Amino acid sequence: VTGGSAVDLSNPRSERVRSVRRLSGRAARRRTGLFLAEGPAAARELAVGAALDVYLTASAADRHPDLRSAALHRGARVFSCTDEVLAAMSDTVSPQGVVAVCRSISLPLDDVLAARPRTIAVLANVRDPGNAGTVIRAADASGTGAVVFTSASVDPFNPKCVRSTTGSVFHVDLCVDADLSDLLTTVRRAGYRVLAADGRGDLDLDDLTDLADTATGPLTGPVVWLFGNEAWGLADEHRRLADDVVRVPIHGRAESLNLAMAATVCLYASARANRRARPDTPRPPTPLRPPGG
Amino acid sequence: VTGGSAVDLSNPRSERVRSVRRLSGRAARRRTGLFLAEGPAAARELAVGAALDVYLTASAADRHPDLRSAALHRGARVFSCTDEVLAAMSDTVSPQGVVAVCRSISLPLDDVLAARPRTIAVLANVRDPGNAGTVIRAADASGTGAVVFTSASVDPFNPKCVRSTTGSVFHVDLCVDADLSDLLTTVRRAGYRVLAADGRGDLDLDDLTDLADTATGPLTGPVVWLFGNEAWGLADEHRRLADDVVRVPIHGRAESLNLAMAATVCLYASARANRRARPDTPRPPTPLRPPGG
Repeated sequence: VTGGSAVDLSNPRSERVRSVRRLSGRAARRRTGLFLAEGPAAARELAVGAALDVYLTASAADRHPDLRSAALHRGARVFSCTDEVLAAMSDTVSPQGVVAVCRSISLPLDDVLAARPRTIAVLANVRDPGNAGTVIRAADASGTGAVVFTSASVDPFNPKCVRSTTGSVFHVDLCVDADLSDLLTTVRRAGYRVLAADGRGDLDLDDLTDLADTATGPLTGPVVWLFGNEAWGLADEHRRLADDVVRVPIHGRAESLNLAMAATVCLYASARANRRARPDTPRPPTPLRPPGG
Repeated sequence: VTGGSAVDLSNPRSERVRSVRRLSGRAARRRTGLFLAEGPAAARELAVGAALDVYLTASAADRHPDLRSAALHRGARVFSCTDEVLAAMSDTVSPQGVVAVCRSISLPLDDVLAARPRTIAVLANVRDPGNAGTVIRAADASGTGAVVFTSASVDPFNPKCVRSTTGSVFHVDLCVDADLSDLLTTVRRAGYRVLAADGRGDLDLDDLTDLADTATGPLTGPVVWLFGNEAWGLADEHRRLADDVVRVPIHGRAESLNLAMAATVCLYASARANRRARPDTPRPPTPLRPPGG
């Protein structure tokens, strides 16, 4: 087998197993620069350069015959291990027989900007790993190139967050531990408009979407979306750092949307505006059937 | 105190406490037509006619001095009880000192249609209560008037689902136990276009949004959105029942959006199309600052 060797791990109390398990905690992730991705879906999404070691039970290898070659192809080593070893490695009730140890890749902000993403999502004081992971997934789906976490936010390489991304942690540029005001100064200098998403915003996202049709609206330029804490939103001093504060309109009687829903709506609004502003972007033809047809 | 009497409940093993606790299970909810709403936010959202009994600890009553009067105002009775009683009533780790017993109001489909909602969300085979609750919240926020659950779907009055709605369970018309093909026949006869949301759809939601600008697009008429199971999507036979199958475009490398995210994007697209098609809808003025201003 090229690029990997099969080793049988059977002792759930071995130092190796315990060192993998420790990556569920932030301290070990900081010290080693490694994180855990669990489950077959995550293992399939491994990025070249991020994949190091993949641990597989025999039954998982049987159920997913492609996994071993996919992992080797990304440059990972693959180890078969007992169910007990796998259970001891993971903090999940059912890791589905697969745990991957990966190198966490956090880019410096300058490298993120060098790729010239049209849209960047910034999470300030976001604490819930499930919400943060869903925003990374929304960023990936909407074509948002990068997600930046301020220093007061959850670690995106937290196992719960990684699970919520369903593989998108390997697809978007991530930058962690950013200082918010430095960050905003830098992105403004690079030509980005900073839009804070907040339920109390002056601007209605739908109005911005209408303006976007003119190709001069604020959604069509390079945009940084700033999202705040899931419970209390953006702090006043952070809201003041934005060029505009935008609300997703509430048409009914709900008090708010949750962070992940609001971020999904905002990032998709930017994606649509960008697609309209650049009609050269390839779009598959759309066959429309008549109503009731 | 008008409309309620303060009674002290201190025995966590009393028949009354156990009957409240049983409402965490579907069988007891079916038998009694009642459900549980937990936490102060839910208690504030109680609907007139749905609110029956509200149970409060002394500390919750202190923290939320408005709760008692709000509950009485909705026609509920309010009982003060010990922390042990409250813990025994709820399946939550922290019900935050408030549990409300409510009448579950599921409308017949004809009553739902009689209100002429522009948009209706239908959940077919949706099993995860958190996802279902988030869709109810998205429906409320986007002004979608009604959410219909097919018989194979989760019970929207499941405590986890109710919590995920953050009060929206009291804001939208709900219809449960619907037979999907009967339902679709009825809504078509009532003039609704049925759009199935599915990652493999022929139509791109952004293209529909562009067409909506012409006020003749499929999003501007009365629309039923059909959403399938969170893991495997819509069954083939259900997809075939729709007028069109619409995908939320994936611009990046994510495999999909989760159900709640996709539903939020779709329902907001309908809301925007409807607002454009009816410019008489009041909109607050939008002050736009110049970029970088």
